[in-house]
Amino acid sequence: MGHEHVLVERDGDHATITMNLPERRNALSSAHMRELTEAFDAVSETDALGITLAANGPVFCAGHDFADVAAADHAEARELLRTCTALMGRIQSVPQVVIARVHALATAAGCQLVASCDLAVAAGSAGFAAPGGKGGWFCHTPMVAVSRSIGRKRAMEMALTGDVIDAATAAEWGLVNYAVPDEELHAATRDLLDRATRGSRRSKALGKQTLYAQFDRPESDAYAHAVEVMAAASQTPEAREGIAAFLEKRRPDWPA
Amino acid sequence: MGHEHVLVERDGDHATITMNLPERRNALSSAHMRELTEAFDAVSETDALGITLAANGPVFCAGHDFADVAAADHAEARELLRTCTALMGRIQSVPQVVIARVHALATAAGCQLVASCDLAVAAGSAGFAAPGGKGGWFCHTPMVAVSRSIGRKRAMEMALTGDVIDAATAAEWGLVNYAVPDEELHAATRDLLDRATRGSRRSKALGKQTLYAQFDRPESDAYAHAVEVMAAASQTPEAREGIAAFLEKRRPDWPA
Amino acid sequence: MGHEHVLVERDGDHATITMNLPERRNALSSAHMRELTEAFDAVSETDALGITLAANGPVFCAGHDFADVAAADHAEARELLRTCTALMGRIQSVPQVVIARVHALATAAGCQLVASCDLAVAAGSAGFAAPGGKGGWFCHTPMVAVSRSIGRKRAMEMALTGDVIDAATAAEWGLVNYAVPDEELHAATRDLLDRATRGSRRSKALGKQTLYAQFDRPESDAYAHAVEVMAAASQTPEAREGIAAFLEKRRPDWPA
Repeated sequence: MGHEHVLVERDGDHATITMNLPERRNALSSAHMRELTEAFDAVSETDALGITLAANGPVFCAGHDFADVAAADHAEARELLRTCTALMGRIQSVPQVVIARVHALATAAGCQLVASCDLAVAAGSAGFAAPGGKGGWFCHTPMVAVSRSIGRKRAMEMALTGDVIDAATAAEWGLVNYAVPDEELHAATRDLLDRATRGSRRSKALGKQTLYAQFDRPESDAYAHAVEVMAAASQTPEAREGIAAFLEKRRPDWPA
Repeated sequence: MGHEHVLVERDGDHATITMNLPERRNALSSAHMRELTEAFDAVSETDALGITLAANGPVFCAGHDFADVAAADHAEARELLRTCTALMGRIQSVPQVVIARVHALATAAGCQLVASCDLAVAAGSAGFAAPGGKGGWFCHTPMVAVSRSIGRKRAMEMALTGDVIDAATAAEWGLVNYAVPDEELHAATRDLLDRATRGSRRSKALGKQTLYAQFDRPESDAYAHAVEVMAAASQTPEAREGIAAFLEKRRPDWPA
Repeated sequence: MGHEHVLVERDGDHATITMNLPERRNALSSAHMRELTEAFDAVSETDALGITLAANGPVFCAGHDFADVAAADHAEARELLRTCTALMGRIQSVPQVVIARVHALATAAGCQLVASCDLAVAAGSAGFAAPGGKGGWFCHTPMVAVSRSIGRKRAMEMALTGDVIDAATAAEWGLVNYAVPDEELHAATRDLLDRATRGSRRSKALGKQTLYAQFDRPESDAYAHAVEVMAAASQTPEAREGIAAFLEKRRPDWPA
């Protein structure tokens, strides 16, 4: 696909998007974020069922590239953050299930990436932090994503201390789904992605998008939205096939 | 009470509403949901302090009846989901404390029932799932309730995989209050319901309703609402009696 | 500072505000709450980095003073609750990091105080409750704060039963950050406060306030706010210094 910073591979039903700037700790320069968004755009149009977000090198992702930020005026910093927010939003809007496969360290916007994926599996030796809290530029936008996965007191602790929490703590707090022994990271991520991509892909894409649409809203608003989506979805070929297969005790044959 | 699908019993201070369609896995047909709502309506007007939602048969509740859904056009599917949402809302609006006593399997709208009760106790052997995720009709509305009890990553995992989580996991994630050995299910549910129904029933009814009104809202909106309710509540006979009894070091005598 | 109900002390980088009405279980009379708010106001204008909220006596804080409430008409009760809500809001709006150091019992508005601090450490023997649930005046406003730290089913359990949860449970549910052996309470609180107050104080103050502004809001609204704050923050002297120090591999010298 001609990317400089990102590798995109297809393996069976799934695609893997790999941040490939090991010497720069996979820092999220504007160019890197644009390529990541383009990679998600490109895979979103394929028939891949799931997408793994992975990274090469000694760090999963160190967040924004401070060389970029140091040179940015207000308008440029704003553009950088809007590019970043668009990437996070794109991960949530692609029809595929997106899972983060996290090794080593995920910090600042790198931690936000993990929080923004639908699912996440961490190597036992991995760590997570919002280090802006102990610096001069607070992790305001990373905490939007992180605070939606973990409790408020824990979000405050991560944000204010900037300290690294380990993978087991991240799993206990709900920032990742599982922390597994390092040597099982690939297999455990693949297993969860396989389990999360069974069934009709069109039904699941709509499901994922509706989940994000209803999260954080008053329950009555969430129901108003979900009822309309689910009623309309009941008439789709995939719902008809799923229900017929269940009633006829046969395997469903999902429409493409 | 002349119900076909539901048993309503009174035992001391509490009522029990039991789904009684064991051969249909207590599936939520329109008729079943209407009877459940009517049962909650009826008990809400009695002096019962608490309501246990229970089930007979090998499954707690398997969710919607796919025979119904298969035959439904868009308008009928919408009506089915609105009936379902009204049932969930009724559980939250009755003045009584409602506790789910869950054995075996609670799936899809059956899992939503558990999430919608004020409290829930599960048998250790029970399981919970949103299986639409691996089918053709996603559990959009069940996830509104489920995602408000558990963390976002865990909600995504349940929704996307459709896999069953066990009772211990459900307790750890906060979908139920407790998972207990199967033989202790009735006693543990009764114990929690007894503890949750002490004090003035009128005060508690207002409290329950105010909790649902303020959940999911920005903290400032929640306070604006709760301050007005609590100030008005301070002038009620039950608040006056509670405070007087405390100051006079005597047992309160709650107004009916 | 001439307070009657509250002690304010400075120790190194931090200030400690201590509720000092042991014989009244540190009950939150109007006068006590006004003094607490004034103490937070006063410390907020000093160069203290962190504030510990502590208590003297056998109870951390028993909530509102029922003698006050018993004598209050509707308007007075409303004023009392508005004074209370203003105190909770002041804790969240001061630029310093505020940590609760909780021993013994924190109930009703006392439990709300703990939930309203940015961080909290509890002695292992401490307990937490919203006892209005078993009385005649429900803990409507305390539950606004408590329910934002813990899951919904757990909030319902605390609110409806009024029972005391122990410190380990409070830590597991996320109401406090840590439960520690009683004899380690002071050291553990100080350690967490030290870790939470490194870095630029101005950057952290903005960070804390932005966290509260974005919590509880739909993710898109939260990002809209956080992006603007973070872009503007990138141009501040503290961000410039933090980023320059990082790039130059030297210790930052924070502007006052």
